[in-house]
Amino acid sequence: MSPVTVAVAGASGYAGGEALRLLLAHPEVEIGVLTAGSNAGELLGRLQPHLLPLADRVLAETSSETLAGHDVVILALPHGQSATIAEQLSDDTLVIDCGADFRLEDASDWERFYGGRHAGSWPYGLPELPGQRARLAGARRIAVPGCYPTVSTLAAAPAIAAGLVEPDVTIVAASGTSGAGKAAKPHLLGSEVMGNASAYGVGGVHRHTPEITQNLRLVHDGEVRVGFTPLLVPMSRGILATVSAPLRRDVSAEEAREVYAAACADEPFVHLLPEGAWPQTQSVLGSNAVHVQVTVDVAASRLVAVGAVDNLAKGTAGAAVQCMNLALGIPETTGLTTIGLAP
Amino acid sequence: MSPVTVAVAGASGYAGGEALRLLLAHPEVEIGVLTAGSNAGELLGRLQPHLLPLADRVLAETSSETLAGHDVVILALPHGQSATIAEQLSDDTLVIDCGADFRLEDASDWERFYGGRHAGSWPYGLPELPGQRARLAGARRIAVPGCYPTVSTLAAAPAIAAGLVEPDVTIVAASGTSGAGKAAKPHLLGSEVMGNASAYGVGGVHRHTPEITQNLRLVHDGEVRVGFTPLLVPMSRGILATVSAPLRRDVSAEEAREVYAAACADEPFVHLLPEGAWPQTQSVLGSNAVHVQVTVDVAASRLVAVGAVDNLAKGTAGAAVQCMNLALGIPETTGLTTIGLAP
Amino acid sequence: MSPVTVAVAGASGYAGGEALRLLLAHPEVEIGVLTAGSNAGELLGRLQPHLLPLADRVLAETSSETLAGHDVVILALPHGQSATIAEQLSDDTLVIDCGADFRLEDASDWERFYGGRHAGSWPYGLPELPGQRARLAGARRIAVPGCYPTVSTLAAAPAIAAGLVEPDVTIVAASGTSGAGKAAKPHLLGSEVMGNASAYGVGGVHRHTPEITQNLRLVHDGEVRVGFTPLLVPMSRGILATVSAPLRRDVSAEEAREVYAAACADEPFVHLLPEGAWPQTQSVLGSNAVHVQVTVDVAASRLVAVGAVDNLAKGTAGAAVQCMNLALGIPETTGLTTIGLAP
Amino acid sequence: MSPVTVAVAGASGYAGGEALRLLLAHPEVEIGVLTAGSNAGELLGRLQPHLLPLADRVLAETSSETLAGHDVVILALPHGQSATIAEQLSDDTLVIDCGADFRLEDASDWERFYGGRHAGSWPYGLPELPGQRARLAGARRIAVPGCYPTVSTLAAAPAIAAGLVEPDVTIVAASGTSGAGKAAKPHLLGSEVMGNASAYGVGGVHRHTPEITQNLRLVHDGEVRVGFTPLLVPMSRGILATVSAPLRRDVSAEEAREVYAAACADEPFVHLLPEGAWPQTQSVLGSNAVHVQVTVDVAASRLVAVGAVDNLAKGTAGAAVQCMNLALGIPETTGLTTIGLAP
Repeated sequence: MSPVTVAVAGASGYAGGEALRLLLAHPEVEIGVLTAGSNAGELLGRLQPHLLPLADRVLAETSSETLAGHDVVILALPHGQSATIAEQLSDDTLVIDCGADFRLEDASDWERFYGGRHAGSWPYGLPELPGQRARLAGARRIAVPGCYPTVSTLAAAPAIAAGLVEPDVTIVAASGTSGAGKAAKPHLLGSEVMGNASAYGVGGVHRHTPEITQNLRLVHDGEVRVGFTPLLVPMSRGILATVSAPLRRDVSAEEAREVYAAACADEPFVHLLPEGAWPQTQSVLGSNAVHVQVTVDVAASRLVAVGAVDNLAKGTAGAAVQCMNLALGIPETTGLTTIGLAP
Repeated sequence: MSPVTVAVAGASGYAGGEALRLLLAHPEVEIGVLTAGSNAGELLGRLQPHLLPLADRVLAETSSETLAGHDVVILALPHGQSATIAEQLSDDTLVIDCGADFRLEDASDWERFYGGRHAGSWPYGLPELPGQRARLAGARRIAVPGCYPTVSTLAAAPAIAAGLVEPDVTIVAASGTSGAGKAAKPHLLGSEVMGNASAYGVGGVHRHTPEITQNLRLVHDGEVRVGFTPLLVPMSRGILATVSAPLRRDVSAEEAREVYAAACADEPFVHLLPEGAWPQTQSVLGSNAVHVQVTVDVAASRLVAVGAVDNLAKGTAGAAVQCMNLALGIPETTGLTTIGLAP
Repeated sequence: MSPVTVAVAGASGYAGGEALRLLLAHPEVEIGVLTAGSNAGELLGRLQPHLLPLADRVLAETSSETLAGHDVVILALPHGQSATIAEQLSDDTLVIDCGADFRLEDASDWERFYGGRHAGSWPYGLPELPGQRARLAGARRIAVPGCYPTVSTLAAAPAIAAGLVEPDVTIVAASGTSGAGKAAKPHLLGSEVMGNASAYGVGGVHRHTPEITQNLRLVHDGEVRVGFTPLLVPMSRGILATVSAPLRRDVSAEEAREVYAAACADEPFVHLLPEGAWPQTQSVLGSNAVHVQVTVDVAASRLVAVGAVDNLAKGTAGAAVQCMNLALGIPETTGLTTIGLAP
Repeated sequence: MSPVTVAVAGASGYAGGEALRLLLAHPEVEIGVLTAGSNAGELLGRLQPHLLPLADRVLAETSSETLAGHDVVILALPHGQSATIAEQLSDDTLVIDCGADFRLEDASDWERFYGGRHAGSWPYGLPELPGQRARLAGARRIAVPGCYPTVSTLAAAPAIAAGLVEPDVTIVAASGTSGAGKAAKPHLLGSEVMGNASAYGVGGVHRHTPEITQNLRLVHDGEVRVGFTPLLVPMSRGILATVSAPLRRDVSAEEAREVYAAACADEPFVHLLPEGAWPQTQSVLGSNAVHVQVTVDVAASRLVAVGAVDNLAKGTAGAAVQCMNLALGIPETTGLTTIGLAP
């Protein structure tokens, strides 16, 4: 079988670099054109020195012309730039957008949280949602989920789907800095983030909030409330999401664990930890695994679930590869690992 | 006026070391005997090389004999060791316990969370609680609050006291590692905590949970529910607590800010940040300041408040000094700063 | 072809865990018995939660009996424990020792730096040294180099071999904490290492000093002087070694680069960065790559070379796999990557 | 006595912020006008939230007009901006430049390392150099040393002055990121520096090299060679400098320690650690202390000294305050501490 040719737009950024790291380990992929914005013309080795086998590749301009002619195009571009390019690519090309442009189904959500015209929505690349694998099989346009929504959804959905809790979820998610990208901003300087924990986007204003809500509505008929607070903590990669919701009835920790065990049973990447062990981001670094644990806080009458994900891997580029596999009929786990880089 | 003589028990640990750092800057204090457990006989300079002016001090054994004869004794000992020593110290000596032994008023809380016999309770060293300054003035036994309860209480209490929210609080607090002390445990190794965020004590089992509940009951007649989840994040110092609770009625962000502004108005150490600015732990490192911000999540119908504290300073040793000042009639802020060490 | 069966002794530690991480990705390996000392009887999933595919493995006692019957045994044990076990394993078994026991050829070096009886020396697992691949091919006992010696040797040897510098090398190497292992010691606590850089083993007393000297003697007839200072810096993995030596004659930066380019030309894992780019540990994390750069300090009349390595991967467990490949006649790079996990 | 009025130019940056942190603790200082470049017009509380007592100060434009009328002006500006402003300030005003503009005496050094016209040189603010206190007493223009030169000089000078070593010094200095300032650059992003150690300015090209050489020439008649390599390591503050030089004769570690003990004996801020203890940056954070240790590497025939400094405190703003004290006849240690913030 001839290899799948994959182009990556935005190859000088974190998501693009991670996509390349994963694609280099994918046995059926041939890496095609790599493009960039202001870094076009540069050697990849100067910008992504960890990608040694691609060190001599020169970055092309990001455009539908340079990206044409591949089986797959992975877009790792700033929000708002994907629609124009995607429109000009062949319908037969599998276009996987790591940005937010096509994630939200509701145009008013888009306008409120991102502003500007809603570009529409594409099949949503979280195969673990009910029915989603079928929608992704054969798809030629896929929207990769946000990093926070991936882990928040996977940690919250089983309890909501099983009716253990009210659909009124409070999420606090501690993230490393790479989710904010490689553009230099003062508050992301090492001097600002090391030795420092901070909150941002508080009060339901973070753009991932409607995306989490949209996902949880797929497992619950009716209104879902999501209170989401992101934290920035001193690490490069990883998100640890703590999800909590009021119990709808008397639920034991054992029952909660059984519900989650059943939800994870057939999932290759979502793993319920042994009883008493709690997720840590270190365990999933560089992998496509999501670690989950759940218990019940009897005194507070709440279920508490915690999930860990690598925001760049399963949280972005790993999901892109997983969805590519599904769309092209390649075994879903090809080229991906569940083994993290620890310590 | 002759200086206040202060002995520190547990001078080789983090809380004891921080107490000494602060006492060295206190204009009315003379540092007396320093004691330790297994480190007795060692030079302080070997164990706390940052405390240069005390480098030549030799650590004595921790006992009521070595600690006798001081105006103030600060106990920075492992939980359970304070009662025996305190009983044998003169009633005229101001004994300030940085441990948990005398924080909880309810014996059944104590037994459930700490085990063993409840030693009783002492005036609780959070002057910012209503009526508490009067209880601390002239006291000769004071229980310093836990680090998580300090910041969680200060972030949650104004909203509950003002009736803005249901007394059903969900708290997720990200902490640095120094709160776990200096005893070497594998999960606290640098290799384990750097690049890693993890949850622990999930489900209402952390020992600081009943202490937070006890504090919030002081501002609310009736039941208070507290769901508390601590996180360990890669930094040495600092706690960032995110507090969230359901609104009892329609509350605007402005009204919430007004309530918090009023609560902070006369407090020397609790500071409401300007609108739009959110707390970060870096800003309070080494200081006795607590930074707070609050807003309303309209879609989730919840109030969200965030607080930052240095767990060793205002979260432990700074509170000890603040309470010492109050107990002895020294101006409350003497020897303490609101200026953090950033970046 | 039937797979190569590999047992790992010391599977609960950092080196053992990294060996397993790499072996899980090796296409010709079947992982056999895993053993531990005090952790025998435990589930690997409790101790190494990142190694998901092996989560249900139970750790056996480390002994020659439990380790017998494998094609390969990788020993990742505390120094001094390998000799006894190795003696009792069949001569046909490939035994790869990640510890120091069989690295030094000189018994007096061993006694001075490690103390006790010298166990002897095995073929030294740095294939990049001249003639070393031939010695490793077919070997059944291999001593894996220390982490500092690996990167220091690779950064220094080309200049010495080419006679560019006097054999009088000054090395300062900044290391992450994982090289110190998983045993809990106070100075390795997260609270001690985060936000902190420190020197240790200063003055030529670090045990890796004679190993570096031994290596450099292989490329220089005559005396070699090595002044080696290790630093501990706040990261889990990685070593950055700065090597400096007096020029023997007028050497330009271009000539130095040509010498290093030639030395790296046929090496699959040692990579000379493009001119002007300097090594960073992030680029090699999790990989078997060593990044090197060199220049000349004209005013100081010194050559300066810098190398970066992942101490657990190419610095320990990756070298073990590379040597296993060589010894067994498997292509040298099988199961190993040159791609680091960044950012 | 009326307080000393001090204006700070560049108050929104790291050096300016640190100067304010220290000045707020200085008993004889009244903080005057605060200025900034692009941040003029902003509230200081938005930019430096840790400086709570100055939160309501509005930043003025940096100009000789806004800065006029103070007893002291501290310039914490980008290199090259100080000369113009200083020329327009009264000769009676004490102007302390934290930048590099007036550090180098040799115009050709300036041109080679900084480029452009040499503005001249001012009394150099390292009081620990021989004769320097006399030059600083009463001075009205002072150039604050660079951070690397401060610690490198203090670690190297005693051995050179005493003739223990050849004046051929190899320095490797590991620095936190705050020395690079607050301007947002991609390689200083948290994602790039956390979990990462890197070398830069290798080969004698770092601008602090001629400054170190200039300092060491003050303690040695004749040529001094300095090979200087700076490293960036994952922490916000602190520099750990390792200094090594060939012994001129047989020197024991004891003799080396005696020489350093004598050099530190009358210095309030330079501290020789007890035998066997090695400097760590954590111990000096926020303080004006420099910790030093020295030993002899017999096999390499080299003396090795290590120094630790807080680059922002004694390495910049603390030196500014120390020099201000000396210039104005205030006791040298006023407002400064030797106590670090650890852990």
